[in-house]
Amino acid sequence: MIRINEHYRKLKASYLFVEIARRVAAHAAAQPERPVIKLGIGDVTHALPSVAVEGFRKGIAEQAGDETFHGYGPEQGYEFLRELIATADFGERGCDVSADEIFVSDGAKCDTGNFQELFAADITVAVPDPVYPVYVDTNVMAGRTGIWRDGRYDGLVYLPGTSENGFVPPPPSQPVDLVYLCFPNNPTGSTATKAELAEWVSYARKTGAIILFDAAYEEFIRDDSLPHSIYEIDGAREVAVEFRSLSKTAGFTGTRCAYTVVPRELKAFDSQGSPHSVRDLWNRRQSTKFNGVSYPVQTAAAAVFTPEGRKEIRARSDYYLENAALIRTTMEELGYECSGGFNSPYVWIRTGTDSWAFFDDVLNRAGVVITPGAGFGLHGEGYVRISAFNHREKVIEALSRIQAALR
Amino acid sequence: MIRINEHYRKLKASYLFVEIARRVAAHAAAQPERPVIKLGIGDVTHALPSVAVEGFRKGIAEQAGDETFHGYGPEQGYEFLRELIATADFGERGCDVSADEIFVSDGAKCDTGNFQELFAADITVAVPDPVYPVYVDTNVMAGRTGIWRDGRYDGLVYLPGTSENGFVPPPPSQPVDLVYLCFPNNPTGSTATKAELAEWVSYARKTGAIILFDAAYEEFIRDDSLPHSIYEIDGAREVAVEFRSLSKTAGFTGTRCAYTVVPRELKAFDSQGSPHSVRDLWNRRQSTKFNGVSYPVQTAAAAVFTPEGRKEIRARSDYYLENAALIRTTMEELGYECSGGFNSPYVWIRTGTDSWAFFDDVLNRAGVVITPGAGFGLHGEGYVRISAFNHREKVIEALSRIQAALR
Repeated sequence: MIRINEHYRKLKASYLFVEIARRVAAHAAAQPERPVIKLGIGDVTHALPSVAVEGFRKGIAEQAGDETFHGYGPEQGYEFLRELIATADFGERGCDVSADEIFVSDGAKCDTGNFQELFAADITVAVPDPVYPVYVDTNVMAGRTGIWRDGRYDGLVYLPGTSENGFVPPPPSQPVDLVYLCFPNNPTGSTATKAELAEWVSYARKTGAIILFDAAYEEFIRDDSLPHSIYEIDGAREVAVEFRSLSKTAGFTGTRCAYTVVPRELKAFDSQGSPHSVRDLWNRRQSTKFNGVSYPVQTAAAAVFTPEGRKEIRARSDYYLENAALIRTTMEELGYECSGGFNSPYVWIRTGTDSWAFFDDVLNRAGVVITPGAGFGLHGEGYVRISAFNHREKVIEALSRIQAALR
Repeated sequence: MIRINEHYRKLKASYLFVEIARRVAAHAAAQPERPVIKLGIGDVTHALPSVAVEGFRKGIAEQAGDETFHGYGPEQGYEFLRELIATADFGERGCDVSADEIFVSDGAKCDTGNFQELFAADITVAVPDPVYPVYVDTNVMAGRTGIWRDGRYDGLVYLPGTSENGFVPPPPSQPVDLVYLCFPNNPTGSTATKAELAEWVSYARKTGAIILFDAAYEEFIRDDSLPHSIYEIDGAREVAVEFRSLSKTAGFTGTRCAYTVVPRELKAFDSQGSPHSVRDLWNRRQSTKFNGVSYPVQTAAAAVFTPEGRKEIRARSDYYLENAALIRTTMEELGYECSGGFNSPYVWIRTGTDSWAFFDDVLNRAGVVITPGAGFGLHGEGYVRISAFNHREKVIEALSRIQAALR
């Protein structure tokens, strides 16, 4: 008789954004006269950049003719795209990343979720708290945790991000094997300096850990002193994987394209202590369980890395950053302590109260959807996240409703 | 110190089609004057159907405007597409499948590869032999097998498909927990009758097994007595998952869209014997590790299910089936016993010889790429697979080269 993967039973009832969607639907049904404004989930609201639309159309025109048709593509992504990424995202910032270390995929959610498959079931995993839930839930499913108890899973090492450490947790005192980091951070909007990342790289080199570095929001960095990539830190190629995404930077949330960098020097070890190339393991995983990204999506993505495309997405992220500054200013005027909103599309707001109650309050009184910090972990309690992804007039309207409701 | 998933070490050196690509590249470098003709990997060669191109363009036009833009979509796929699938693929054949039991994805390779995650690590798995390698390799990675020995993995139950059973293996004498079946079959081209599938459904109901039914080639069935879906068999909803794909049927190999049906009645059990909905487990898995299919790909897919689209893909599969008949006739004339080629785009040819040697011989003497049966398992030895996916003139040229080389 077939038995389930019992680890699924440890999962909390519902993925955070599914629960939010449920509450929003209930509210909308109860108060249909005032449309809700969504500053919750980090989903972009503006049309796909025009260069990407053109790139998309070009790809489809090729698919429409027998002579130019593309069937199965490389599981790793087309070289034309990987070469562009290597140059634009890494080479130009002085990072040594080559095209054959880049794996194109349909989403950073998939990649950050799947990468743990390469490692042993009994390794020790460290995650930030607050945390993007995918890092945690995928390790729960893989059996690397105990049960859920008092707001945490047994067996995981939590790295508290607090106002005291500027929401940049330092390395823990004990050794761990796998560490998830995300900067600019989701949900706190915090950024890590080169010195802070160097401390993590040094920790990983010393303890033999691997860092899974989620850089999905690097496009929003404006402070030139801040690193965009972990490979700006010496020695990172031996200890870090980096995840990137076009979702927020180029409006690809509905179009789906991301990429992951796995340097050739990165090794993990078998039980005899022999090293294995993590790049080769990921390549094997992707070749076996994935069939590459839609060809026209890859031509759309390639267009983003042209000089024209980069100018267009810069203007786009400028716009969202202006929204973020408005949100932060307004919430500070209302007396709340804030993090993020600069170099990040998220503002992390200390409410001091039960964050689901604050979420419900803002939803019911202002008709605005935000995200309760408690959904991101124990250290998210007492905070909420407001996302800058919306049209300016919607953001202004939402802030004015929030001001009226909370003042 | 980080340790690898040791199960990856059990995997054979390389995925079948990677090895073929390697040999073809070496051959092309050595004999550049005669371009090789590919009848190996089952990749379509004709342009995307015009209705799908139009659907694709419509989706992109929507992505190009703020008012019509789609960001993150449902992880399960858009309802407009799932409703069309439920009616066209199932309702019209008398199968009771509803839209909320359909999960749209970027490939049947991903879904057939990922589905095993829902089950315990120590269940017993049965696979056909010959077999689509993804069913096997993903279970090796998950630790459900022992080592590779004498052409097989310890711990897997192999179901031999032989000329004696018409390449339709009957249920085994022992109980197993999870069974992979594929009809029309890849690689043998065999089809299962309703009576044969009913025997499997009855076995699964009796033993508490779940059948993962891969119907990626159902579009090629022309014999009206043959089932297209396992849900044409009474009682299948309690024991079977079905995988479908637009890759071969609608030329989506480079565009990427597939779907999986998980009926509400399907249950698996925890260690206390309590039932759990497999649909809900899959929904949780997809919500956590997947972010939905590209919106324009879904509008392209939806166009395939219109009356016009279905007419176009029928004409396309007719064309490939005519190729298949030519291949089968020619190989039979050359004295080879064949299976498939009717109701299937694959012809499975008994050579009686070492199949990699036969592959090399056809590649070197005829410049034609086929697939060695041994790559699909022990019972593939002595066979090769020829795929009908190519242009008619290429197929005719390939067959004439093969005739000259082998006669």
